Amino acid sequence: MNDKVLLAHGSGGRLSHDLIEKYFMPRLDNPILNRLDDSAVLEMKGRIAFTTDSYIIKPVFFPGGDIGRLAVCGTINDLSTSGAVPKYLSLGLIIEEGLPIADLEDIMASVSETAKEAGVFVVTGDTKVVDHGSADGIFINTSGIGIIPEDIDISGANAKDGDKVIISGTIGDHGITVMAQREGLKFTVPVESDCAPLNGLVSDILKVSANIHCLRDPTRGGLATTLIELASQSGVGIQIYEDKIPVRDAVRGMCEILGFDPLYIANEGKMVIIAGPEDADIIIDILRKNRYGGDAAVIGEVTSQQKGRVVLKTGLGSSRIVDMPAGDLLPRIC
Amino acid sequence: MNDKVLLAHGSGGRLSHDLIEKYFMPRLDNPILNRLDDSAVLEMKGRIAFTTDSYIIKPVFFPGGDIGRLAVCGTINDLSTSGAVPKYLSLGLIIEEGLPIADLEDIMASVSETAKEAGVFVVTGDTKVVDHGSADGIFINTSGIGIIPEDIDISGANAKDGDKVIISGTIGDHGITVMAQREGLKFTVPVESDCAPLNGLVSDILKVSANIHCLRDPTRGGLATTLIELASQSGVGIQIYEDKIPVRDAVRGMCEILGFDPLYIANEGKMVIIAGPEDADIIIDILRKNRYGGDAAVIGEVTSQQKGRVVLKTGLGSSRIVDMPAGDLLPRIC
Repeated sequence: MNDKVLLAHGSGGRLSHDLIEKYFMPRLDNPILNRLDDSAVLEMKGRIAFTTDSYIIKPVFFPGGDIGRLAVCGTINDLSTSGAVPKYLSLGLIIEEGLPIADLEDIMASVSETAKEAGVFVVTGDTKVVDHGSADGIFINTSGIGIIPEDIDISGANAKDGDKVIISGTIGDHGITVMAQREGLKFTVPVESDCAPLNGLVSDILKVSANIHCLRDPTRGGLATTLIELASQSGVGIQIYEDKIPVRDAVRGMCEILGFDPLYIANEGKMVIIAGPEDADIIIDILRKNRYGGDAAVIGEVTSQQKGRVVLKTGLGSSRIVDMPAGDLLPRIC
Repeated sequence: MNDKVLLAHGSGGRLSHDLIEKYFMPRLDNPILNRLDDSAVLEMKGRIAFTTDSYIIKPVFFPGGDIGRLAVCGTINDLSTSGAVPKYLSLGLIIEEGLPIADLEDIMASVSETAKEAGVFVVTGDTKVVDHGSADGIFINTSGIGIIPEDIDISGANAKDGDKVIISGTIGDHGITVMAQREGLKFTVPVESDCAPLNGLVSDILKVSANIHCLRDPTRGGLATTLIELASQSGVGIQIYEDKIPVRDAVRGMCEILGFDPLYIANEGKMVIIAGPEDADIIIDILRKNRYGGDAAVIGEVTSQQKGRVVLKTGLGSSRIVDMPAGDLLPRIC
């Protein structure tokens, strides 16, 4: 009967309480959340990282993940970029009236599984329901808190001349997968979203190198936009080599057919690492041992030339400035 | 030309950066946000409160406030219910393509003013844009972090037999105001939303009483739902007196005409306080001196009877059990 989400599920009344008790608490169960006060109470000491992201991806389910996994991974990865150990998440749902309850259950199962995989707890939440036509299925906001170990100082402003630029794996998988889903395209070689929590991978490399200067996950705007941001924030130039950047054949093929550049396609399970050159080899070794870092590669270096800019050296030996895209190649990719 | 929000403003590319630089940073400027890393870095020690809420109110502008003020107040008030001193907010925007930039500017001005009034900083944010028809104007998520002073232990589970139940002012103002806006109703007596940050009020009463056991802001579901939650969480009964509950004439009149009960109408600037009876007078004195507590009143008490239930004594001396509403009286009120 009630196989769809109703406006009343967001009312704060009895149906809201039922939704929380029946579908959310069994999945998210932990002593902090279980208090059910308006705020979670956490013990903290030292520096913490705090971040927020809303997820509006379309479609909600896609090969390699769904909006639930994405919402947990995205915020975990943002926390990880400051070198923090992610600990606690909030979960804010905006649901369109009429969303199948079965979809909500699948999404909550993903949230729960991904949080367990990453070792984080959802400690506070909120559910709102809007009338049919006033949203598109479900939007999720996750905010997150992580603890920054004492000796860590990682920021987009810390890249230094001579540093190496590393990517933890192939680029473009997420964006191309979601677009293919949306457009109903068929691939001969299947491609999946890379959507993954990278806190383990980051913690692995921080254990072996004290010379990691910047971490950033190249999501919206892709690797190109991320590198331009880092070059600008640090006031340095970045030079990258086209033929060192790992791209799957299926992604490269799709990009060629459609006129996209993989540099601008979103990733949801990759990390850009800028580190002192002396540690590049050990970082690559460690990344490749991680389940999410098998295709890690050094793709370029930081220079003192062309400050604030990213220069791409092509396979043919020519150079071009990498521009920040004005707008969207692919809207609603995350 | 660009007087409306475009999909490209949410792309992560150049237009996203322009939007942030032009409209957000000047309003929200603070050293933590200005780093522009993916996570804010905060120094913390001891217990912190962490909470999240999404705001989907319709219409976005209403007498007494707008979605920007509401989003800041709502999360500040949730933090305050744990006795925390609110410190930092995140701001997650989901904007429908086509929202007038002028509206966005007004909303950001409200966010900024309300944050200043309450002494909190927006330290991290995110902006997503969805295609026209996939959202309704703008939705805002705010998550917040506050610091809980050492000697504070406030929870919905702490109400004790004999405690007094206090409300910080008139009920129903917010819900009735928003409904009147939406329905185009005209009042002879004007009514405004009570939307306000209550951290100052909470801090005032915590200074004079060590016997405050529960704090909760009666938003969705109104005073009735909040009291039922507290009775249930604490395993106590709550008895309230109809003629002691402050209600504005205009709100009472509207409720009578439309068949609503003010007990169930949302508030956005009120606090329910449950405290030891010995401190009720001083708490009322202090509340009434605060700009948001002028109509504060003791409205009932905690009992050991009818555990988990709220009983209303009417003006005529009869009693009735106050039920939790199943669904929405007024959807999209916050």
